[in-house]
Amino acid sequence: MIKAGIIGSTGYAGGELVRLLLGHRETEIVWYGSRSYVDKKYYQVYQNMFQIVDAVCLDDNMEELAQQADVIFTATPQGLCASLVNETILAKTKVIDLSADFRIKDVKVYEEWYKIEHKSPQFLEEAVYGLCEINREAVKKARLVANPGCYTTCSILTIYPLLKEGLIDASTIIVDAKSGTSGAGRGAKTDNLFCEVNENMKAYGVTSHRHTPEIEEQLGYAAGEPVYISFTPHLVPMNRGILATAYATLKPGVTQEQVRAAYDKYYEKEAFIRVLDQDVCPQTKWVEGSNYVDINFKIDKRTNRVIMMGAIDNLVKGAAGQAVQNMNLMFGLKETMGLELVPVFP
Amino acid sequence: MIKAGIIGSTGYAGGELVRLLLGHRETEIVWYGSRSYVDKKYYQVYQNMFQIVDAVCLDDNMEELAQQADVIFTATPQGLCASLVNETILAKTKVIDLSADFRIKDVKVYEEWYKIEHKSPQFLEEAVYGLCEINREAVKKARLVANPGCYTTCSILTIYPLLKEGLIDASTIIVDAKSGTSGAGRGAKTDNLFCEVNENMKAYGVTSHRHTPEIEEQLGYAAGEPVYISFTPHLVPMNRGILATAYATLKPGVTQEQVRAAYDKYYEKEAFIRVLDQDVCPQTKWVEGSNYVDINFKIDKRTNRVIMMGAIDNLVKGAAGQAVQNMNLMFGLKETMGLELVPVFP
Amino acid sequence: MIKAGIIGSTGYAGGELVRLLLGHRETEIVWYGSRSYVDKKYYQVYQNMFQIVDAVCLDDNMEELAQQADVIFTATPQGLCASLVNETILAKTKVIDLSADFRIKDVKVYEEWYKIEHKSPQFLEEAVYGLCEINREAVKKARLVANPGCYTTCSILTIYPLLKEGLIDASTIIVDAKSGTSGAGRGAKTDNLFCEVNENMKAYGVTSHRHTPEIEEQLGYAAGEPVYISFTPHLVPMNRGILATAYATLKPGVTQEQVRAAYDKYYEKEAFIRVLDQDVCPQTKWVEGSNYVDINFKIDKRTNRVIMMGAIDNLVKGAAGQAVQNMNLMFGLKETMGLELVPVFP
Amino acid sequence: MIKAGIIGSTGYAGGELVRLLLGHRETEIVWYGSRSYVDKKYYQVYQNMFQIVDAVCLDDNMEELAQQADVIFTATPQGLCASLVNETILAKTKVIDLSADFRIKDVKVYEEWYKIEHKSPQFLEEAVYGLCEINREAVKKARLVANPGCYTTCSILTIYPLLKEGLIDASTIIVDAKSGTSGAGRGAKTDNLFCEVNENMKAYGVTSHRHTPEIEEQLGYAAGEPVYISFTPHLVPMNRGILATAYATLKPGVTQEQVRAAYDKYYEKEAFIRVLDQDVCPQTKWVEGSNYVDINFKIDKRTNRVIMMGAIDNLVKGAAGQAVQNMNLMFGLKETMGLELVPVFP
Repeated sequence: MIKAGIIGSTGYAGGELVRLLLGHRETEIVWYGSRSYVDKKYYQVYQNMFQIVDAVCLDDNMEELAQQADVIFTATPQGLCASLVNETILAKTKVIDLSADFRIKDVKVYEEWYKIEHKSPQFLEEAVYGLCEINREAVKKARLVANPGCYTTCSILTIYPLLKEGLIDASTIIVDAKSGTSGAGRGAKTDNLFCEVNENMKAYGVTSHRHTPEIEEQLGYAAGEPVYISFTPHLVPMNRGILATAYATLKPGVTQEQVRAAYDKYYEKEAFIRVLDQDVCPQTKWVEGSNYVDINFKIDKRTNRVIMMGAIDNLVKGAAGQAVQNMNLMFGLKETMGLELVPVFP
Repeated sequence: MIKAGIIGSTGYAGGELVRLLLGHRETEIVWYGSRSYVDKKYYQVYQNMFQIVDAVCLDDNMEELAQQADVIFTATPQGLCASLVNETILAKTKVIDLSADFRIKDVKVYEEWYKIEHKSPQFLEEAVYGLCEINREAVKKARLVANPGCYTTCSILTIYPLLKEGLIDASTIIVDAKSGTSGAGRGAKTDNLFCEVNENMKAYGVTSHRHTPEIEEQLGYAAGEPVYISFTPHLVPMNRGILATAYATLKPGVTQEQVRAAYDKYYEKEAFIRVLDQDVCPQTKWVEGSNYVDINFKIDKRTNRVIMMGAIDNLVKGAAGQAVQNMNLMFGLKETMGLELVPVFP
Repeated sequence: MIKAGIIGSTGYAGGELVRLLLGHRETEIVWYGSRSYVDKKYYQVYQNMFQIVDAVCLDDNMEELAQQADVIFTATPQGLCASLVNETILAKTKVIDLSADFRIKDVKVYEEWYKIEHKSPQFLEEAVYGLCEINREAVKKARLVANPGCYTTCSILTIYPLLKEGLIDASTIIVDAKSGTSGAGRGAKTDNLFCEVNENMKAYGVTSHRHTPEIEEQLGYAAGEPVYISFTPHLVPMNRGILATAYATLKPGVTQEQVRAAYDKYYEKEAFIRVLDQDVCPQTKWVEGSNYVDINFKIDKRTNRVIMMGAIDNLVKGAAGQAVQNMNLMFGLKETMGLELVPVFP
Repeated sequence: MIKAGIIGSTGYAGGELVRLLLGHRETEIVWYGSRSYVDKKYYQVYQNMFQIVDAVCLDDNMEELAQQADVIFTATPQGLCASLVNETILAKTKVIDLSADFRIKDVKVYEEWYKIEHKSPQFLEEAVYGLCEINREAVKKARLVANPGCYTTCSILTIYPLLKEGLIDASTIIVDAKSGTSGAGRGAKTDNLFCEVNENMKAYGVTSHRHTPEIEEQLGYAAGEPVYISFTPHLVPMNRGILATAYATLKPGVTQEQVRAAYDKYYEKEAFIRVLDQDVCPQTKWVEGSNYVDINFKIDKRTNRVIMMGAIDNLVKGAAGQAVQNMNLMFGLKETMGLELVPVFP
């Protein structure tokens, strides 16, 4: 039985992690961390957990937690994990960081986009970027996994095979992404009030969203050269779900069959990636509550572009589900354990 | 392994039944019935099932189905189950009817409220009303179970203990119920279009909703005398969830403690009923995707009324989840098998 | 041209007041009060007002405002208006208070339900309860109008004629009300975040909501005796709209025709109250953006109760629209001026 | 007083047209056409119009209508207007067609994208494309106006100045558009049911949406050469609103100031186009219920692209509001008459 501790268990990603781990037969949650709700019953924060979780919320004591837990999940704001992690901790326990602290290898890029000083750059090289479908073998051996961002997961997986196979011109990539509001977290901000989000749609963070360099770094590995993209996130009046619509110019002569074959090559055996039947566009509702990524594409012959589309549940494959998938790999469990969730519809 | 067949598997309740049975380790679905989509792949109707269900939809052949299945679920419009069921079928297989055909013992009451002739009144006496928490023992022995309605389940369970214990005046019961739109089914009607429901709220079926006599019959058994209530359903712009707010005048001298004790008496050991902490009002989101019923009450000393509140997911405890719970009882399985679903929030 | 000042212009009710007054041809807004946004352009708070309103937000200086304005609207939290108003101010200008400070005649009842000390009880007698359809003549002569609450407006108007005409038993009145989330205001609270409200429904303030004594006082005037009701508000995932479903036992022998006649007697000539055709249930969307109250009823012969239903836009007839209607009456203008708004659908 | 007739008055665009014309002081609606609801009271279809519109729905008799009306609005499916219009009618009355029949000059392009034969190609040359801000003078003289599509209006106006001024490379234009569900019309289709749209997001009509050639034709006029774009529409769980996010590569050396100057050059004097302050992204809610187009842009220096964003209410500026704006121009009225609508928020 793996003993798991969660720092930041009362945010939306933390709450989802609790939901998933409760259904994971090889894991036991030993620490419900929440700086804001110390000593409060966890179910009083999330009443859906009434009579399911009886624990009280504990403070963010990573030293203590490293004693008790085999794995620590940090579902906290940027900077916290990097400020707490150290060699002593990593010697005792594995860490899966759901924040951005260890996602970007170049500390300067991190500090430029996140506007904070990185407190543990010495672990950047060791940290493994936990996009399981791409870094599976490295994850298996990792002590410290950087769990990818939600937009990032969806964007990278949607584009990856075409770039890796050299079917698209990397300089033409544009990602127009749409996210449900849980991605904005549970902080009490006017912008996220029901009446501000409902019946409304907007772009935000245009040209400056922090997931941009993360997507670029990973796509760069696939392309074998630096990649710069335009990335525009949008806020959608729904709780969950990310839809990424990506555009790129096809290399001359690339056919429908070649594009499909590229997706199949990388994803056919993946348990959580579903390349849909031709002409079926992904819908976020079809993956809700599950760890699936639904992907498809359409070639626009008039402009010689390919329109790639991917859909995930931002709290599952975009956060907690992927974290569990990483945990499974790190502990040698079946990768799908606890994640065989049928999407909820409607 | 129980072989299950579903007639009406492409409605919302049918779809939810598929989702639940896929997670039930002792059951296998052998028949995806859908008159509207015969020969179509099931996943083409519900793309959330892509790569999960490969079966094609079959016609509503109950005779044939009785040969193949240990249990048949009928998630169909009123009248269909009653027109298909017969002794031959019941001799071979168990039937759990999610429609109203066998819920009401008095055929005249059924025909008056449903405006259709009952085709199999001879099975009314045998049929067991499948509200497990109340009729558990009878369900265990049943061949034919009438799965309760969604509003009904929520309303009865919310009121039952107080009526059974004689704490409230039965003649004063009013149920004001609010339902998500999946309760209206998947039929293409203008009234259920997104733009008609969204940002809107209304009562409907006022004084004439068909769940009224069903609630009354069951509450009548609890009271030991005929009960007549006012029942008003409302349509709410959300997919899932029913909230029942029920009002009744307390018998003289009844205290907070007595009311709480009544709920605890009947529900403390129930796996799926959660009587919340004092002053916590049920919210539909806290039970979403799960088989829970969240219940609480508040006494209004100024008027000597008790306000009882109950929340369920209409597609789970109000339909498919309860059907699985009945199946578990009928087959001697653990009652909670396949239903240990943690509510999804947000 | 009436010069109008608004204290609290950046709340939702204040914002709606701005929208309505901009379309009122005899009014000019001279003061956009907002303690939170002093010196900020009003349109930077509400970008819908870009290029429409160029003013900056001003502090809550009621003394100064009384010099400049013919009428002051206070769309502020409870207690503020009562703490600012005085004889000097009322000698110079009219005040329409959208808070609860002057709605309840009995200061003890106010202080008990609102848990704050009333700072100006000396004006309670003079203040006119601004439910125009009922207090029209008094409003015309008033210096200080207490603009009714949103739930209150909807509940009282829905029940008033039947109580006034003695058709229902006052001791049996139950109001089950449902409100859109704008009623909760623009304060940044976790409970009002999109993800907490969306796909969710709950009761709140059960037996303790502050609109209860306000409804009771006004219904008491209609009944000619004290009235005590059960009032339960609910939060609905929509921006605007209140639906009140009210229940009462009919006096013996009361007919459908008598009930209808009672509604017609009081409302037939009212510009903003629409008694719908028989069997048509009010829907909040049908009044959205307008000052209408849609009302209808249904008699439940089995229980001898009448179910009364009323729908308003909580920000218009439930707040800003009614305030403008009061202003029109106080200044001798046509009552409907600036309020001839066709409901927006869908 | 202009006598207006509406063919297709019970669709969502038709209903919005009724709302707007009721508030237009120089217009009177003389014909509420609706093939589906002939002889039914209009308010029975749209209860928001109860006690406002007393007329009954009439059949689609354009000959008769031409006798009675000064202007006919056709808010009908593609093909109907073209099949009804003729010289006799145009000699008597003006026609504003909200369908696509006369938007595209090249009949082959129309027939290819719409898959129907054009019944009146002889009027294509005469018809004026009614995008008022661009074709104002031509509209003033027109007998037959092709009212632009909703996506089209938003997309063209968002891009036009930069293309006209030669600041962007026309071959790089991508439009990723998001629409509320009222754009899908009031037909009873499963795909548009509340439960299918709510909590969901998807692309549709990828590479094949019919508004593509319409956008391309108009942008081609601006560019002075044929333009081919990628256009991807998405369905968003909200009633109203279109957000277009458009991408294009800037010509070398183009600056922030030049882009801003281009927008100002064309839109500074436009009553309905608001170019927002720097860094403020358009939100659909800020224009809801109004005829405004909110536009802004952001330059991505890293990729040398400009991200252009535009927001409209699809039923107002995207349909009925623009139709009224065209009518105003055609009849020599003030262009903004009946359209000075303050956006409704929240």
